[in-house]
Amino acid sequence: MLTDKHVVVIGGDARQLEIIRKLSTLDAKISMIGFDQLNDGFIGASKHTLKDIEWSTADAILLPVSGTSSDGKIETVFSNESLVLKVDHLQQTPEHCVIYSGISNEYLDNCVENSKRSLVKLMERDDVAIYNSIPTAEGTVMMAIQHTDITIHRAKVAVLGLGRVGMSVARTFSALGANVKVGANESQQLARITEMGLTPFHTDHMKEELRDIDLCINTIPARVITANVLAEMPLHTLIIDLASKPGGTDFRYAEKRGMKALLAPGLPGIVAPKTAGQILADVLAVLLTNQTKK
Amino acid sequence: MLTDKHVVVIGGDARQLEIIRKLSTLDAKISMIGFDQLNDGFIGASKHTLKDIEWSTADAILLPVSGTSSDGKIETVFSNESLVLKVDHLQQTPEHCVIYSGISNEYLDNCVENSKRSLVKLMERDDVAIYNSIPTAEGTVMMAIQHTDITIHRAKVAVLGLGRVGMSVARTFSALGANVKVGANESQQLARITEMGLTPFHTDHMKEELRDIDLCINTIPARVITANVLAEMPLHTLIIDLASKPGGTDFRYAEKRGMKALLAPGLPGIVAPKTAGQILADVLAVLLTNQTKK
Repeated sequence: MLTDKHVVVIGGDARQLEIIRKLSTLDAKISMIGFDQLNDGFIGASKHTLKDIEWSTADAILLPVSGTSSDGKIETVFSNESLVLKVDHLQQTPEHCVIYSGISNEYLDNCVENSKRSLVKLMERDDVAIYNSIPTAEGTVMMAIQHTDITIHRAKVAVLGLGRVGMSVARTFSALGANVKVGANESQQLARITEMGLTPFHTDHMKEELRDIDLCINTIPARVITANVLAEMPLHTLIIDLASKPGGTDFRYAEKRGMKALLAPGLPGIVAPKTAGQILADVLAVLLTNQTKK
Repeated sequence: MLTDKHVVVIGGDARQLEIIRKLSTLDAKISMIGFDQLNDGFIGASKHTLKDIEWSTADAILLPVSGTSSDGKIETVFSNESLVLKVDHLQQTPEHCVIYSGISNEYLDNCVENSKRSLVKLMERDDVAIYNSIPTAEGTVMMAIQHTDITIHRAKVAVLGLGRVGMSVARTFSALGANVKVGANESQQLARITEMGLTPFHTDHMKEELRDIDLCINTIPARVITANVLAEMPLHTLIIDLASKPGGTDFRYAEKRGMKALLAPGLPGIVAPKTAGQILADVLAVLLTNQTKK
């Protein structure tokens, strides 16, 4: 339980509501900033502004998945008010207060550093990334069905990378009956791909291995689908790039050659906001409970 | 091979192109009617109109999946011309000429009967229905991802019916990690559901069994999801009805109660027209080859 713990939630989207719901169930005291247009009431949660909040009692501050913009703005879909996080806010919190955000940037890093507080970047955690790979894989399935004129069943699919996302994507497409090959460069990954009943290949042979595929899903955060590789792919191949911006595909060349290549945005928040919120809520609940124990 | 066989293809959509491609590979002589706006050329295929076609040499006539309208019109996406099939056309064909259509209606049945030709309804064939259940299941997955805010993974899914479509749908959702229960009323079906590792229930207990599910997929062509059943379902439950029109759901009541219930249209032609065309092409190739042998 999080009884007597004060969590300040600033901005966000539908995912924050799942988090608030969970923390409220755990009996935390929740202050919501940037939720003035929200009609739902939560037990133990009250609405505030950046000005009237009691920073001195905050045990934790929760920012949206996107953190802040480069000039400190915090996105919220539940208010038209502009929210800007300042060092000054954090300095008013007690020393043990922890800032939780999805990702960070220079602005947020500076704020946290200058106020001598600690920051947890939830999206960089392995557990969050693995749970999030489930809605990511489902979003990829949705895009593949929408953007091809063939079934996934019996399609020739190549997945690049066997990291946290690549493994889930490969397993999901295989479960739907696709012929899945997975490209990796470490021997233990090639072994795992084989164990999964899929066809492994070394990324050194990318060009040859992608010559006859219908769908190519990249999860490697490096320029791996080069013009050189694209030039030998069939023209009908759909490329879905799941690596963070700018992705691993030479999109300019793909377009020039008339190939469909899609840089997938943050799929969990789009295809399954409720589940994506629950994932963060569950991990946060554990983190806040452990924070309390210290 | 279908050398020297004359197939007249009248109207249709992208699926017809896959059929023409396949029959052309098998060396058939193909006459295309209602394709004047199509730029692709096919070896052995020539464009005609209903007037200039040589009916007397036709070994087979291929209509679109939809057959004809109730007044004989044949749909085509490749022409603005109006195409109307008449008894007179069929009477000019040789006696052994077979008419292939997806489905039929009174108009087409009468045409065929009055001209004493035979009709094959491709969509009623078991093999076609089973192959088509693959893109149907994938289209259902796409709809489920689009219309819910949770992942299919770990969602509580009920599939009603274990026929040709129900089995594929149940297997597919289970492969994606859903908790799948399947409703049926025959003991051998309940046995098969158990063998598949899914949870069986008798459709007599529909109301109780659907009380806590997130997604309900109906494949039974009868009014099974009644107001009585809907009244006890959670409000967030998404209903996808795959039974042919008018479906098995009391849509009026679902709407009144604020529940999302979708009658899915012919999914194979929408989500995977190329695969759907190949399915018909493969079955037709076998049928035409056997027709030739007689």
